[in-house]
Amino acid sequence: MNVLIVYAHPEPRSLNGSLKDFAVQRLENAGHAVQVSDLYAMQWKAVLDAADNTAPRPGERFDPSGDSRRAFEGGTQSADIALEQDKLRWADAVILQFPLWWFSMPAILKGWIERVYAYGFAYGVGEHSDTHWGDRYGEGTLAGKRAMLVVTTGGWESHYTSRGINGPIDDLLFPIQHGLLFYPGFDVLPPHVVYRVGKIDDARFEQVREALGQRLDTLGSTPPIPFRKQNAGDYRIPELTLRPELASGQSGFGVHLDHDRV
Amino acid sequence: MNVLIVYAHPEPRSLNGSLKDFAVQRLENAGHAVQVSDLYAMQWKAVLDAADNTAPRPGERFDPSGDSRRAFEGGTQSADIALEQDKLRWADAVILQFPLWWFSMPAILKGWIERVYAYGFAYGVGEHSDTHWGDRYGEGTLAGKRAMLVVTTGGWESHYTSRGINGPIDDLLFPIQHGLLFYPGFDVLPPHVVYRVGKIDDARFEQVREALGQRLDTLGSTPPIPFRKQNAGDYRIPELTLRPELASGQSGFGVHLDHDRV
Repeated sequence: MNVLIVYAHPEPRSLNGSLKDFAVQRLENAGHAVQVSDLYAMQWKAVLDAADNTAPRPGERFDPSGDSRRAFEGGTQSADIALEQDKLRWADAVILQFPLWWFSMPAILKGWIERVYAYGFAYGVGEHSDTHWGDRYGEGTLAGKRAMLVVTTGGWESHYTSRGINGPIDDLLFPIQHGLLFYPGFDVLPPHVVYRVGKIDDARFEQVREALGQRLDTLGSTPPIPFRKQNAGDYRIPELTLRPELASGQSGFGVHLDHDRV
Repeated sequence: MNVLIVYAHPEPRSLNGSLKDFAVQRLENAGHAVQVSDLYAMQWKAVLDAADNTAPRPGERFDPSGDSRRAFEGGTQSADIALEQDKLRWADAVILQFPLWWFSMPAILKGWIERVYAYGFAYGVGEHSDTHWGDRYGEGTLAGKRAMLVVTTGGWESHYTSRGINGPIDDLLFPIQHGLLFYPGFDVLPPHVVYRVGKIDDARFEQVREALGQRLDTLGSTPPIPFRKQNAGDYRIPELTLRPELASGQSGFGVHLDHDRV
């Protein structure tokens, strides 16, 4: 497979840096082709702004989605954006690797999403009608590709359990896994989370590395999270609420998983 | 009151820009003192990195939390960071205003949090013992101050309801409201969300403005979201899981609200 690792940590000599290097090696040893977008090393421009369209309209106000659309359709996107889109097209699997900072991804990675996920590329794709509300949530440009998060946290695992004070890790990651990855079409694998990374000795480092290695070895075969497709009948259109007979009486992020699907 | 508005939209002539200007006027007319951190206009540095400590240790690896701590304690923080911390100390109420991009805040605002929320300022505060796990989640540097989100979305309100495809808006905002605002001590008011902002005519704009005005008029009196305090007895320490007799049998973000508290 072709594997793209999008990696966001400022220090190469960190645990994250070691795990990224390990992942590249492990994947290449298994015969995969690997590209890394090392956002800090690339000095990735984190902030979406008018300069992302190299052909701005003088005097017009900047419209984030409108300008994104014009730039994407007209081939006037900033070169760094187009390059990352090419990497996504090339990839069969994409890994986003980052430390969980304030319960989400680092700003530099959020800015990668905002700029690379152009209108016409990752959203605003497909027809809108009474039975189909755009190619999204299970359909779209990135359909057929796999994606997985590799996340480190300073906090303890118990703090991220179903009744832990930070909130369940799956719910904290839902806006990313469902909203950023499933949305443009990815099959999203369960996340690989490493907890309490401030306290890792050599013995535990070996375990951490090997646990990640197992996930990389099964990148092509691990069953994805069974998120419900938007346009396959489970949702009313255009309200986009789950039909009442499904997950009846329930609410929240969990209803968007179809546990009966295998 | 002293009110700080932290505002993140790239275009002054946008709906967000208009609402920000309106908010300043409305608050000042009511006798409040207002400061605005207009992150795009300030060209805020979004990316946390080694340069945030003006006294780095040569040859040492960069440690995001360790360097933040040394810079905060030693008075060697980058000047832009210290200035924003002063604004937070000055404020009685803080409004974060932003468009919801990919189900979270724009990267430039996430980077404001990451850089301004220093170790010793917004985290790593207070003692850790068997009965107290740091001054956080209801205690901390920003305790006694109020905070509120003002958020715009392109999507429809039904898409963000309890069974809407994007997930419930309260759950999408939980990592921000609980994890970024309640964490360092803020009392967090219910968010003010404006939906479907791509389709706003003059009549609706008047309604949108007035609805925001009402929220601003009651900024000092609106009851906060009843998040549970970490160190007040509801959680086991150090596991930080909710005691089994509370919200018994339930799980997810919702258990961290105490609906019996008035």
